[in-house]
Amino acid sequence: MNYRRLFSSDVPSFMRSPVREIFRKVDLSAICSFAGGYPAAVTFPVEDLKTLPGRVLEKYGTKALQYGATQGVPELREAIAARYGVPVSQVQVTTSSQQGIDVCTRILCDPGDVILTTEPTYLGALQSFKAYRADVRPISSYRQPEKGVLRIDAPEPKPHYKFIYVIPDFNNPSGETMTLEERKEIVALARELDIVILEDSPYRELRYSGEDVPTIRELAPERTLHLGSFSKIFAPGFRLGWIIGPEELLEQIYVCKQALDLCPPVFDQYLAAEFLTSGALDANLVKTKAEYRRRRDLMVSLLEKYMPEGVKWTYPEGGMFLFLTLPESIDTIEMYDEALSKGVAYVAGSFFFLDGSHRNTMRLNFSFIAEEKMEPGLKLLGGIVAGRLNR
Amino acid sequence: MNYRRLFSSDVPSFMRSPVREIFRKVDLSAICSFAGGYPAAVTFPVEDLKTLPGRVLEKYGTKALQYGATQGVPELREAIAARYGVPVSQVQVTTSSQQGIDVCTRILCDPGDVILTTEPTYLGALQSFKAYRADVRPISSYRQPEKGVLRIDAPEPKPHYKFIYVIPDFNNPSGETMTLEERKEIVALARELDIVILEDSPYRELRYSGEDVPTIRELAPERTLHLGSFSKIFAPGFRLGWIIGPEELLEQIYVCKQALDLCPPVFDQYLAAEFLTSGALDANLVKTKAEYRRRRDLMVSLLEKYMPEGVKWTYPEGGMFLFLTLPESIDTIEMYDEALSKGVAYVAGSFFFLDGSHRNTMRLNFSFIAEEKMEPGLKLLGGIVAGRLNR
Repeated sequence: MNYRRLFSSDVPSFMRSPVREIFRKVDLSAICSFAGGYPAAVTFPVEDLKTLPGRVLEKYGTKALQYGATQGVPELREAIAARYGVPVSQVQVTTSSQQGIDVCTRILCDPGDVILTTEPTYLGALQSFKAYRADVRPISSYRQPEKGVLRIDAPEPKPHYKFIYVIPDFNNPSGETMTLEERKEIVALARELDIVILEDSPYRELRYSGEDVPTIRELAPERTLHLGSFSKIFAPGFRLGWIIGPEELLEQIYVCKQALDLCPPVFDQYLAAEFLTSGALDANLVKTKAEYRRRRDLMVSLLEKYMPEGVKWTYPEGGMFLFLTLPESIDTIEMYDEALSKGVAYVAGSFFFLDGSHRNTMRLNFSFIAEEKMEPGLKLLGGIVAGRLNR
Repeated sequence: MNYRRLFSSDVPSFMRSPVREIFRKVDLSAICSFAGGYPAAVTFPVEDLKTLPGRVLEKYGTKALQYGATQGVPELREAIAARYGVPVSQVQVTTSSQQGIDVCTRILCDPGDVILTTEPTYLGALQSFKAYRADVRPISSYRQPEKGVLRIDAPEPKPHYKFIYVIPDFNNPSGETMTLEERKEIVALARELDIVILEDSPYRELRYSGEDVPTIRELAPERTLHLGSFSKIFAPGFRLGWIIGPEELLEQIYVCKQALDLCPPVFDQYLAAEFLTSGALDANLVKTKAEYRRRRDLMVSLLEKYMPEGVKWTYPEGGMFLFLTLPESIDTIEMYDEALSKGVAYVAGSFFFLDGSHRNTMRLNFSFIAEEKMEPGLKLLGGIVAGRLNR
């Protein structure tokens, strides 16, 4: 049977995650892999989880096993609302933060509609945007050279701008954090275009140094859909996230979500609610941040030790990644097979750019790799880079 | 801010579930409600769940809390494959059976594409179909009056037929089961049109009498996407289902699902895998079926006792529903407010028909209502119907 003639027009635009494809083909656990974006297993609250399920069953009974409200169970919505100081009516629980990205795109974008994004940017978001055949453009192309500010000089006919996508805190992949000024500039552009901002914020709770900057939602609550995630502060195996946003937008997300999966996982939501309201989440977060801070500092010191001159990297104040810029002569996609064969993996940075440029960059993850593999891994990588520079 | 101008073209086609809207407005637990489609809480394996999470953590460790493969964790895929006698490569785990419907529609349907469905049919499926702006048509309109067989007399230009949607076992809402002949007829039509069949099968394991009929997937594996669900044989709070289908179709579903939610809930998948492979699922299923069989028999006997002459109902061999047909003079939508005010709820049958016809029908659920409410509820309902007939 020829299935291809039956596929929808979206299908040719589906984009495989290069990261997931790497995982599919190679057993990265056997080598020194900085490729994944996974949290460290040591940060998972295994001890809490020995008692949490029993407590949930005792406290909530079979309600925790039944279908739940599409918006999320009230107990979790209330806990999220209280933590972030917003009304419950502005909280929608999602079946993962990835679903948050997907459903927001679904309610806002027709094929050809324009999404503006900072770069480098999250691959999973690009997958969603492309799957709806949106016209994704780098926001930097709207920066006016003479004035240095973001401005749209509207071409005729004006395209259908729909939203700006940003990861203001500890960007995946760059690890960088937007300053208040940069955030205000994003808000100003969104206001000028009268469009929405999708603020993807899965790492915000993971700050290891520096000071919090106000969220974009706080600067422009009327036009921001703020996406949060339990994957980095509880465990990704629960697939839970949330959207905080204007009620009128959440109402359409709610109706759409009925058709997507009826409701987020209910048992998991009660686990998360109990984890959060009991104070266990904050206690675990202290440990998680200490663990990641140490790993970040270790990675930075190892980069200083092993990388040849001419290699630069970002200094992340939080999150899970840093971003390397190598001398122009090095192509990290081309170098990947050599690295893999020698026992080290990374993600080429050009995957995170719309036009596939920046081929001399790479993303390194410091949260997932076993700590004792960091030094041999970066030593290997430094050697490979140095070898190429000396050719 | 005016959000409406930003919405995608799909949004006006989003359809609210009348059932979920009923739940949103009225506390049905206070009355005799036959409206929901929920499993009975007594069928949930609460005792097993006291030890399952601990066993999963011990056996699988932090793997059970980490991100997982997009296709589902291998242990669960293998367990499903073994249970239904298919290769693992033909199994995709979904974040609920509803997601299965949604993602199949997504990869197959453009706006205006034709989906054929039997009627009455599942509301959640119609929500997904309409959200993609498919042209959903009743398959009965293709039955040739003179020959009595399903046939397409293709109009010119031929529309883009994409798939046939059926719930062959214990249909929601009708409770009816398709005969082998009827299934073969569906397959013949699908083969004639060279399209796919979406076989929605959440109730198949819940048979209380009669004999199994082969699935449509068994009759036409090359063109069937078979949807299964853990919601009725484990617990709906876990939001887990599966798709069994041809690998070439699953491959597109896999890529699409990366963007939808990366992977199904991992911890829940291990719970389900452990529940299934340990034999606890089958043990619990015996109890579940005994419970529902008794409830079905009770409902049928109460209908015989309390319904006035001229009322007919289906006799479900499994599942959770039966379908009432009242005398033509009664409009169940119009009657609903009276019923609710007197303390009984149902779902009007016309919601399950594409054209809103069959206004003299209703769906009654026998799985969820407290058993002691069945008699007062059906007595009330019988009285209301009788009152209207005697006006």
